[in-house]
Amino acid sequence: MSERKRLEQWKGQINQELDRVMEFWIQHSHDQDYGGFFTCLSQDGAVYDDLKYIWLQGRQVWMYCRLYRKVPRFHREDILNTAITGGEFLLAHARPSADSLKCAFVVTRDGRAVKIQRTIFGECFYVMAMDELWRVTHEDRYKKEARQMMDQITHWVRVDPTELGRPELCGAGKVNSMAVPMMLLNLVDQLSEDDEEMTTTYKEVGTWSVQMILQHLQRDGKAVLENVSEHGQELPGCLGRHQNSGHAIEAGWFLLRQAITRTDQSLAKTAVEKFIILPFLLGWDQDHGGLYSFQDVDGHCPTQLEWSMKLWWPHTEALIAFLLGYQETGDQKLLEYFEKVYNYVFSQFSDPENGEWFGYLNREGKVALSIKGGPFKGCFHIPRCLYMCEEILSKLLDIMDNKA
Amino acid sequence: MSERKRLEQWKGQINQELDRVMEFWIQHSHDQDYGGFFTCLSQDGAVYDDLKYIWLQGRQVWMYCRLYRKVPRFHREDILNTAITGGEFLLAHARPSADSLKCAFVVTRDGRAVKIQRTIFGECFYVMAMDELWRVTHEDRYKKEARQMMDQITHWVRVDPTELGRPELCGAGKVNSMAVPMMLLNLVDQLSEDDEEMTTTYKEVGTWSVQMILQHLQRDGKAVLENVSEHGQELPGCLGRHQNSGHAIEAGWFLLRQAITRTDQSLAKTAVEKFIILPFLLGWDQDHGGLYSFQDVDGHCPTQLEWSMKLWWPHTEALIAFLLGYQETGDQKLLEYFEKVYNYVFSQFSDPENGEWFGYLNREGKVALSIKGGPFKGCFHIPRCLYMCEEILSKLLDIMDNKA
Repeated sequence: MSERKRLEQWKGQINQELDRVMEFWIQHSHDQDYGGFFTCLSQDGAVYDDLKYIWLQGRQVWMYCRLYRKVPRFHREDILNTAITGGEFLLAHARPSADSLKCAFVVTRDGRAVKIQRTIFGECFYVMAMDELWRVTHEDRYKKEARQMMDQITHWVRVDPTELGRPELCGAGKVNSMAVPMMLLNLVDQLSEDDEEMTTTYKEVGTWSVQMILQHLQRDGKAVLENVSEHGQELPGCLGRHQNSGHAIEAGWFLLRQAITRTDQSLAKTAVEKFIILPFLLGWDQDHGGLYSFQDVDGHCPTQLEWSMKLWWPHTEALIAFLLGYQETGDQKLLEYFEKVYNYVFSQFSDPENGEWFGYLNREGKVALSIKGGPFKGCFHIPRCLYMCEEILSKLLDIMDNKA
Repeated sequence: MSERKRLEQWKGQINQELDRVMEFWIQHSHDQDYGGFFTCLSQDGAVYDDLKYIWLQGRQVWMYCRLYRKVPRFHREDILNTAITGGEFLLAHARPSADSLKCAFVVTRDGRAVKIQRTIFGECFYVMAMDELWRVTHEDRYKKEARQMMDQITHWVRVDPTELGRPELCGAGKVNSMAVPMMLLNLVDQLSEDDEEMTTTYKEVGTWSVQMILQHLQRDGKAVLENVSEHGQELPGCLGRHQNSGHAIEAGWFLLRQAITRTDQSLAKTAVEKFIILPFLLGWDQDHGGLYSFQDVDGHCPTQLEWSMKLWWPHTEALIAFLLGYQETGDQKLLEYFEKVYNYVFSQFSDPENGEWFGYLNREGKVALSIKGGPFKGCFHIPRCLYMCEEILSKLLDIMDNKA
């Protein structure tokens, strides 16, 4: 098959899949009474719990706005209005009290705080939601919220984490955990889009985040480790040997976007070779296919019970990463890896019967949890992947057309 | 085969298995330099991480003392001395600072705090260790430590949980979580053994714990639910529908021991029928054998990724529960259930090559994690089960001999 034909076929199937996935969330997840979204959805979309996880609320608001803004067929009034209702739910209920800086991790259907985590991730998706809401509504109060929370997060990460509530303990050294600089870089990317002021304001945070991510490349460039010391040294024990190929690959395409923005060839090369290809080759299960969730760099058995399970999100990140990598390098090998992951996800994760994807397969690829959404899986990784892949494929096909 | 023959065979195999299991820990887990125990042990006993989990330290101290005290072939000076070294490690390092009430969850090899959990479980096993240490050394300072921490725990549970560090949130009602009264009942059982003063002191706590456990029997006696409201009402959502058959069965034998102590026939009946047999029948995987880790009482898919995995500890608790139940009731059905679990564990969990048991099997019974110990698995459930089963089988055989 010609390359053009392959890209067209993928684009067609991805386009359809994005519609089917969004239809699932639009049909089943909207809370008409209180605003916001149900994310605990069974295989067929039935709500099996009405708790609202704040980071998933933020992610879904972001996703709706982003599709409204970027994909013409989703530029629909109902999608915008639902996103606004979700955003207002967040404004009213994400913070447990008016004077609280932290967001709750999970709230009741009507917005009363149930649990607070001592991390920054709920707050990060709050920023994503608010910034994207501002871009579609042009209401400054959303932008102000995004900006304020962003500054709060960088303060917690870089100046003083006291308010997060974790006690400082003498046996616990400061850890550079991949998730934190990754998330910050993603926020900088979000806030800076077509915005010179924000680009200038957060340039240094972006540079710092890139450096902190690059620290995770260890062992003479032969492994990406999830946790290193604050000065970029390998840590002892399981913590130090921990590998999360999905995170590494996601960081890879975050880095690659940053490299494109900065026209930094060297960073682009590192992103593709070390953060995308290397973790993929190490993380792919040669026997059963799919990416392991966690591995130990020295080959010990991880202590996480789900280490060998195949989760949806490392695979969506790999699809984005390979396609973006191919766009930038033209390297055919990346297209082959894309195809490998593509075939795996469409045969194993996608649910032809009810729409959306299963999220949790066992090592052999069998569905282990039949839920479509839960405390960790909402309307985010899959539609983000499908929309980004559709966009990249369109661009690649346009370039071919222009060349022809 | 005659019943006598069956019991004898089981006793013989269990006796051998206990020796093999203890040999594994004695050979691989002792930290000669700092005292205490390594519990992160690979399949062959190699230490893959030297962090020390406080609850596992407490459990191993308890186990060594208990075997020293109750099983003549383990009444060895080296076992006692190692237990004392472990106890001294706890006294020196379990609490992050001299004025700290809470214990750490995990410390470095040399005892510096790495993480503190907002729960009571580390503290509970601290009590178990100190009380059992007192029983073998007769040193009052151990008893004093046990007593002091016990009073602290009951204060946190029944009067004021503020010091545990969990914020009170308006969306989070007070939950009666099975683990808490179970653990308290276990502590009362421990502290009261042959001790009239302690029996009197903690009688009311014991009665309260029994009542709180019985609240978990819901739906007209047709299900044991892991979490109920503080007044014993079913809770909404996943939290309320959550079932943990291993916990229910373990609570069952705790209740049964309490019923025996109090000669309470009605409590014994409830323990056996509702907390042991019922959860076993609901929790046993009819297709592949083994007890599920978690289930949803309405048949929804649980959100815990490991819900269908087979873990070692629910099976050890079932073995104890069925044998103790048979001892009390003489019901042959319980012996059949015992045999079913017995055959499963000896064929699936036990490692004939290196000793000890694997802890984590997938749904189909294949080893999913090859580790023998980790943050949650140490020297406790398996030797406790084997020693108790050996003791019960000896008693049953003695009774047969006396009858003959």
